[in-house]
Amino acid sequence: MISSKDNAKIKAVARLVTSAKARRDSGMFVLEGTRLSAEALGDNIRICEMYYTNNVAASNPTLISNLRARANFETEVSESVFEKISDTCSPQGVLLVVQFKAPVSVPDNGRFLAFEMVQDPSNLGAAARTAEALGFAGIILSKKGADPYSPKSLRASMGALLRLPIIYSDDFLATLEGFKLKGFNINGTVVDANATKINTVSFSQNEVTVIGNEANGMTDAAKSVCDRLLTIPMAGRAESLNAAAAAAIVMWEMCR
Amino acid sequence: MISSKDNAKIKAVARLVTSAKARRDSGMFVLEGTRLSAEALGDNIRICEMYYTNNVAASNPTLISNLRARANFETEVSESVFEKISDTCSPQGVLLVVQFKAPVSVPDNGRFLAFEMVQDPSNLGAAARTAEALGFAGIILSKKGADPYSPKSLRASMGALLRLPIIYSDDFLATLEGFKLKGFNINGTVVDANATKINTVSFSQNEVTVIGNEANGMTDAAKSVCDRLLTIPMAGRAESLNAAAAAAIVMWEMCR
Repeated sequence: MISSKDNAKIKAVARLVTSAKARRDSGMFVLEGTRLSAEALGDNIRICEMYYTNNVAASNPTLISNLRARANFETEVSESVFEKISDTCSPQGVLLVVQFKAPVSVPDNGRFLAFEMVQDPSNLGAAARTAEALGFAGIILSKKGADPYSPKSLRASMGALLRLPIIYSDDFLATLEGFKLKGFNINGTVVDANATKINTVSFSQNEVTVIGNEANGMTDAAKSVCDRLLTIPMAGRAESLNAAAAAAIVMWEMCR
Repeated sequence: MISSKDNAKIKAVARLVTSAKARRDSGMFVLEGTRLSAEALGDNIRICEMYYTNNVAASNPTLISNLRARANFETEVSESVFEKISDTCSPQGVLLVVQFKAPVSVPDNGRFLAFEMVQDPSNLGAAARTAEALGFAGIILSKKGADPYSPKSLRASMGALLRLPIIYSDDFLATLEGFKLKGFNINGTVVDANATKINTVSFSQNEVTVIGNEANGMTDAAKSVCDRLLTIPMAGRAESLNAAAAAAIVMWEMCR
């Protein structure tokens, strides 16, 4: 059992929790809590390390013993050590270090949501969850935005980010251009009462719709790649539609 | 300056933060953070008490001095005292105790979202924010559900819960019946692939749509009050559409 916060493994896990760079450099990320940990058992994920408290082993014996059997390295830790590696105010006491899945091959057709530099990991996670529920083929993310493998993103997605194909793009514009060349329609979204209302257009089976950054919207460069710019007509305070709600409405319209 | 966590006022504020009963009994609730506090200045809210740290007074001098001028009682507190009354992991250092607004008179027409025992305050807040953006007339809540005046609800709503008419009902079914008598159509929502698809019906200007509890859906009693039961068709994992995303799609369809 590890009871020192200065343990080298504990320090490395804490870095993975807080640093997107540490996740990128190592190819690892962290799944925390009983629900996300259970997802790691169901999906084809490599569990490299597992940390758990005595309390969670007592309250969830089956889950913990299944995870211990799957993990390359596993150890009990004290409550105070767990607090150091936890991203939540009320830790559940189980945390996995897992390996990135191999990049998925991108489907040649279907509906995609693209986020240009989404800022808030909870918005990203919530939108991924909706995308999965509505049967989207995948989501496209720019690397300058929120990290889909951050604890907050993964938690808000209820695991959808572990299951949905993600195109995590170094060059967002080139990725959009690539989809365009494959015959997809590329839609941009803007907050502009004069833009085409999203409920007045029709969508094909092969569409990508881009949602911009929460504060600044889409870049002009990304808009220029789009076949059309669409808006969600609003009656009240325009700034009050958050990115996850806007994404839900946009995705719903795309497959309505 | 208050620097003791055992101060009687601090203990009372901590109860208001954590206890819905304390909020009901006192008719007070808490607004935390710079954004929600600024809302209290803009809206017609009575600021009874104000607590702030030295740090926030230095970083937001105008906001803090305006709030101090409006509050009946105001005091600086130490960082550790503030942590005791804060609901967040990273407190911003300003917190108000405010008085409930007088119950609004309910508009006789318009679109309403009704939550039957919504469980998660963040879902409630996010849905209120979307309702405001889409120009809804108000929201209807059952008192058995999440408290709209909890810190989490208020934060997720970005203040929409302070501005939107809320019918906070002791008897949810009677409230629905009352709307029905006034000529509103009452819609229920269910997760049922055989129910009427929400995108195949038309909505009038005067509609109430009910969303059920996250785990159990609507009660049979509430369903029996409804004129029709609707569903959001889903292609993927049905359980993956969260209440706030479902509410966004439902409200969008109602005013599409």
